[in-house]
Amino acid sequence: MKTNRLEAFSDGVLAIIITIMVLELKAPHSADLDALRPLLPSLLTYLLSFVYLGIYWNNHHHLLHATPRINGAIMWANLNLLFWLSLVPFFTAWLGENHSAPWPAALYGGVLLMAAVSYTILQTTIVSHLGRDSKLARSLGSDLKGRLSIAMYLAAIGFAWLHPTISDLLYIGVALIWIIPDRRAQAAFED
Amino acid sequence: MKTNRLEAFSDGVLAIIITIMVLELKAPHSADLDALRPLLPSLLTYLLSFVYLGIYWNNHHHLLHATPRINGAIMWANLNLLFWLSLVPFFTAWLGENHSAPWPAALYGGVLLMAAVSYTILQTTIVSHLGRDSKLARSLGSDLKGRLSIAMYLAAIGFAWLHPTISDLLYIGVALIWIIPDRRAQAAFED
Amino acid sequence: MKTNRLEAFSDGVLAIIITIMVLELKAPHSADLDALRPLLPSLLTYLLSFVYLGIYWNNHHHLLHATPRINGAIMWANLNLLFWLSLVPFFTAWLGENHSAPWPAALYGGVLLMAAVSYTILQTTIVSHLGRDSKLARSLGSDLKGRLSIAMYLAAIGFAWLHPTISDLLYIGVALIWIIPDRRAQAAFED
Amino acid sequence: MKTNRLEAFSDGVLAIIITIMVLELKAPHSADLDALRPLLPSLLTYLLSFVYLGIYWNNHHHLLHATPRINGAIMWANLNLLFWLSLVPFFTAWLGENHSAPWPAALYGGVLLMAAVSYTILQTTIVSHLGRDSKLARSLGSDLKGRLSIAMYLAAIGFAWLHPTISDLLYIGVALIWIIPDRRAQAAFED
Repeated sequence: MKTNRLEAFSDGVLAIIITIMVLELKAPHSADLDALRPLLPSLLTYLLSFVYLGIYWNNHHHLLHATPRINGAIMWANLNLLFWLSLVPFFTAWLGENHSAPWPAALYGGVLLMAAVSYTILQTTIVSHLGRDSKLARSLGSDLKGRLSIAMYLAAIGFAWLHPTISDLLYIGVALIWIIPDRRAQAAFED
Repeated sequence: MKTNRLEAFSDGVLAIIITIMVLELKAPHSADLDALRPLLPSLLTYLLSFVYLGIYWNNHHHLLHATPRINGAIMWANLNLLFWLSLVPFFTAWLGENHSAPWPAALYGGVLLMAAVSYTILQTTIVSHLGRDSKLARSLGSDLKGRLSIAMYLAAIGFAWLHPTISDLLYIGVALIWIIPDRRAQAAFED
Repeated sequence: MKTNRLEAFSDGVLAIIITIMVLELKAPHSADLDALRPLLPSLLTYLLSFVYLGIYWNNHHHLLHATPRINGAIMWANLNLLFWLSLVPFFTAWLGENHSAPWPAALYGGVLLMAAVSYTILQTTIVSHLGRDSKLARSLGSDLKGRLSIAMYLAAIGFAWLHPTISDLLYIGVALIWIIPDRRAQAAFED
Repeated sequence: MKTNRLEAFSDGVLAIIITIMVLELKAPHSADLDALRPLLPSLLTYLLSFVYLGIYWNNHHHLLHATPRINGAIMWANLNLLFWLSLVPFFTAWLGENHSAPWPAALYGGVLLMAAVSYTILQTTIVSHLGRDSKLARSLGSDLKGRLSIAMYLAAIGFAWLHPTISDLLYIGVALIWIIPDRRAQAAFED
């Protein structure tokens, strides 16, 4: 089974997810600047989710480029990742409207955590298909960034009940860690 | 006529159908966890439909990969399948809001049944175009899974008036049967 | 300038237009079958528009396949066609809600007429770019189907004030004329 | 890193942005022509934004075609451009509903200005990656049209408080300047 139709389908789904989030930003009826002010948290949450989906698209691109062949398990691991990412617009909208409440802050982290775990499962499934001696397996190493992100998501979910702003800062922090493309998979691909 | 633009168009439509379903999940205004509870059946129905569309995408991918050339009849059989799949988000939303009522449970099965029949028509159209001696024709065999699914959909539609939960379980059952990629078309393709 | 990114972009836009129309079908809150009855005209109008967009996708596919190179004028003629097609969901929704009123029936025809004229402009622009002696130019011939469709749209727009049902039948009639792929461009492409 | 998956993803996002704008045009419940009249400014604003996104798609296409290889910085400069373009539907809807008010007129220009600046950043990032002696760098020259557009956007934003119609005319003016594809990048690509 070839990788390219999986890539094309994933690209399509990711492009739609990243774009339909903006549909949650409803233009106000009033023409005043004040009418936009309540939308500001929604806009900032949209920006954060846009960056996250950009990171996923980019890392997914590198990961699949290092994957010459796929199987059924990889296909389902990939759909599982797309499922969790498809829930990001919902939780982005909920957090945008309620940015200082514990549950929206915690569940935004929850869906990001599930996406991160799903990405790890996809990566592991690919590595076990290609073999432990593949270039990809060697280049991924200990996956420090992946494990650090999961720890930060868990911390952010915990802080949601103490101080949701700390949760928000942790989500921004994870995005900053990943904004640099994953050089390990990239290296495996460029080899 | 080449297969690849048909594949690209179908991938686009399937990627959009699978993703816009999430737009039916409206973020509640309240920040309480209780506000999410009424959305749980909608979320689970979305998950089931997501799995169904993933199955269709996967089997469609295998089927078309085993189809080196297409004609007008295949093109229209494919559009017919996409039409029925495009109604899945509507019936998913209706079932999600009314998950223990007979009509939503029955019509969700109805649209899945029409999609299954349309897929069979597409398969038959392709086989009659490629010839009964093509690898695809031989690998499809008696299409046991296809016929079993149709029987299960019909049973689920009947149970909708007796006990809609049995209908739901039958829909989950069909998904489980298909979650493993169709090895017959896959085998034809890998030959 | 190569044709394939234009094709990919047009496919994307057409796939989205054909799919987002279904978002206009809002699942009713009630679980009764009666709650679906008022949606039936909307569903049938959606089916008709789905068929029209399928026809455009198919003919567009054949036309561009017979076009080895494009220029800026072709690019804008193509965007002009996509613009009019992008208005189809709006007028489909309006006609679906008001299927026996003159203005929705007339303007649904108006947007189909503009799409047909835009398709003719695209075709003419391509022919003048490729030259009157190109295979495509010779295979298009007198474009009888194109001219008949435009006459039928004009008649349908006129009948909208006398008897909107005749307009609807004319729209179905045009779709039936075109449901067979355009053999002329297809022939040019298969040459 | 190859350019083609970046192109495919950008095409997908641009195709979705250009199409979902039409979802902001809600079909009225009434079947009278009068019911459409209040939508006319929204329709014209949609047309203008459609043309802008068509221009961006076209120039983006030429720019990336002249870019044989990309890096992480180009990827993020591209996502930054897509982010600002993704806000166009929101500000189109707001301007469409309030077309003679200062803030919607000014912020529509603001988002176009940010997109123009982002495009310039993308262009500069690509040139610095390919080198000052690349064909692309030489063909871009002094980027007169880019600088003129930015000046016109700034003027339009200023006029929004004096006379929003002048702002609208300036936005139409910038679109007219760009409606001709960027011959410089095109020339570099055709070399």
